[in-house]
Amino acid sequence: MANYFITYSYLYHQKDMLEDHVRTGAYFNACMRNKAQFKDRVVLDVGTGSGILAIFAAKAGAKKVYAVEATSMAQHARELVDAQGLSKVVEVIQGTIESVTLPEKVDIIISEWMGYFLLRESMLDSVLVARDKFLKPDGALYPSHARMFLAPIRSQLTQNRFQECSNSVENWHDFVADMKEYYDVDLNCLTESFIEEQQDYFVKTATWADVHPNQLLGPPVCFASLDLLTVTQDEIKKALEANYSMHLPQMCTVEGLAGFFDVEFKGSPSNPATDCVLLSTAPSATGATHWGQLIFSLQPGIPCPQNSTIEGKIDITRRGDNHRLLDVTLSEQALRMGENNRKDLAKYLFHIE
Amino acid sequence: MANYFITYSYLYHQKDMLEDHVRTGAYFNACMRNKAQFKDRVVLDVGTGSGILAIFAAKAGAKKVYAVEATSMAQHARELVDAQGLSKVVEVIQGTIESVTLPEKVDIIISEWMGYFLLRESMLDSVLVARDKFLKPDGALYPSHARMFLAPIRSQLTQNRFQECSNSVENWHDFVADMKEYYDVDLNCLTESFIEEQQDYFVKTATWADVHPNQLLGPPVCFASLDLLTVTQDEIKKALEANYSMHLPQMCTVEGLAGFFDVEFKGSPSNPATDCVLLSTAPSATGATHWGQLIFSLQPGIPCPQNSTIEGKIDITRRGDNHRLLDVTLSEQALRMGENNRKDLAKYLFHIE
Repeated sequence: MANYFITYSYLYHQKDMLEDHVRTGAYFNACMRNKAQFKDRVVLDVGTGSGILAIFAAKAGAKKVYAVEATSMAQHARELVDAQGLSKVVEVIQGTIESVTLPEKVDIIISEWMGYFLLRESMLDSVLVARDKFLKPDGALYPSHARMFLAPIRSQLTQNRFQECSNSVENWHDFVADMKEYYDVDLNCLTESFIEEQQDYFVKTATWADVHPNQLLGPPVCFASLDLLTVTQDEIKKALEANYSMHLPQMCTVEGLAGFFDVEFKGSPSNPATDCVLLSTAPSATGATHWGQLIFSLQPGIPCPQNSTIEGKIDITRRGDNHRLLDVTLSEQALRMGENNRKDLAKYLFHIE
Repeated sequence: MANYFITYSYLYHQKDMLEDHVRTGAYFNACMRNKAQFKDRVVLDVGTGSGILAIFAAKAGAKKVYAVEATSMAQHARELVDAQGLSKVVEVIQGTIESVTLPEKVDIIISEWMGYFLLRESMLDSVLVARDKFLKPDGALYPSHARMFLAPIRSQLTQNRFQECSNSVENWHDFVADMKEYYDVDLNCLTESFIEEQQDYFVKTATWADVHPNQLLGPPVCFASLDLLTVTQDEIKKALEANYSMHLPQMCTVEGLAGFFDVEFKGSPSNPATDCVLLSTAPSATGATHWGQLIFSLQPGIPCPQNSTIEGKIDITRRGDNHRLLDVTLSEQALRMGENNRKDLAKYLFHIE
């Protein structure tokens, strides 16, 4: 089995996701507050894991739920379904969504496919495959919409990562000196490559964080919005490109951008939800979901005067060596401080590991 | 590229290995104290990484060194070789040993192939492939011999892991209660599987440790000895089976067994080393090598009277799902306390991850 799936075959990891009650609660509410939409419908759960969403759908009144899971977790999902007395409604099928067949088309596809910064893991691919293979023309996706955000923040974490990088490089110099002294081998020719490698790791890799709303230096901006019913497989496989413009009301130093997402459960035009549930991963005073926010470090920080704006362009591309990982580029960045006062900023490259 | 190799493509990881000076120093001495053996010889370094062993061999007088490396680290090895002015002697070849060809047979194969508990990673396979493909009939392997040891120990670590496992299971029960309360879903049917999974992780997975000699409750026993010049590829791919008998001179409670290894650089019968270097990973008061020792937990501990013996049989097999990982079984274990006083002990299964 591909490496990607292995994590999901552990109950420990399933527990981690289940006890993210912002996440699990949102799916629970999306089902339970929209029983009219689920009643007597046929549902498909893509990547059911422990089977929880399939169980919610069944409890909301679905007449049949196909719960597809690639890993051996399918066995546990089956046990869990049985224990709830739902084995007549929920059918757990072990296999990838790309390989399974279903005896009928479905009214609703429910799936928790979101990765860090929404798109990491590229599991949306599989949901769209499922949609195009199995969803009736008037069917609905749960969730139905997704949005991506960036927000300017101050962050001790970005300073720390910067510092850790310096420490590591200092330590390298000691190491090089030792190697020369002990073995008469000069490793200095690798110093530049080592520094690059460490910067990649400490500074150019987006960092998971639980950002507090007070760290926000301006309002988050939505730079991408996906209608999951209509977005095509080709569209999401291409680079996502968008412009952003972030307002900084106060004088401040922007040390990083926090990236996060939300998804909405609106049903479909022909079967709209009664109660539209929102699952947000925005910075919150009550703490982050398991997705947290991803911080893109702008260390040593961009000093911004009152009432200025940071503009730029974000590109999100899949990594050539692993399509489930992402590269993020912030380019054409500029700081605008009034009508004709524009200062170019550096270009930044980040990995999402 | 297979996942296995990825770690080795980072300088950070190469540094970790290089600054293990017990390791690097042993190879340095094995070369420098045996210059007569290296002088004007042709050498092959299997998995050269940063190129350090190839450089040692060249400095010891080899007329030609082929340095084979599967990862992109080969590029750095080339830079390092150039920087030492050795590019006429050392030829870095990127590729797996199974796929490369050399223009000639070699006199010496040097390689640092040892994994945790000697055999993890199964890289010895590649060294034996190299030996059978490229080594002259009277050639030598550096190292030439390897031995594996077990020692009875007391260990707070095994107690801690045991405790962590209990804590995790307790936490699971709270989680199950929450899931019932919040979503009316009963996860109790998965409790047994969760406990098994956690025991696998916390108790049945061998743990890296830096064991202090004072933790030893009796002398280490050597249970396996490999002559790398003669052992066959088939032999090392089969399960390694051996008996052991560990003497406990004092009354004590054996809480775990520490597994470790050493390798010796004796040259070959036709080209023996002048100075036989030993690289040992045994518990040491000056701290562990990066291999440490692997602890197999026998919690809650085996109470042993003075002058008793723990006997048993160890089986080491490769994992079906990943041949670079190992399963270790301790079976037919018994505590012998005098002529006719023998008490059977439990059977233990461990993973080496």
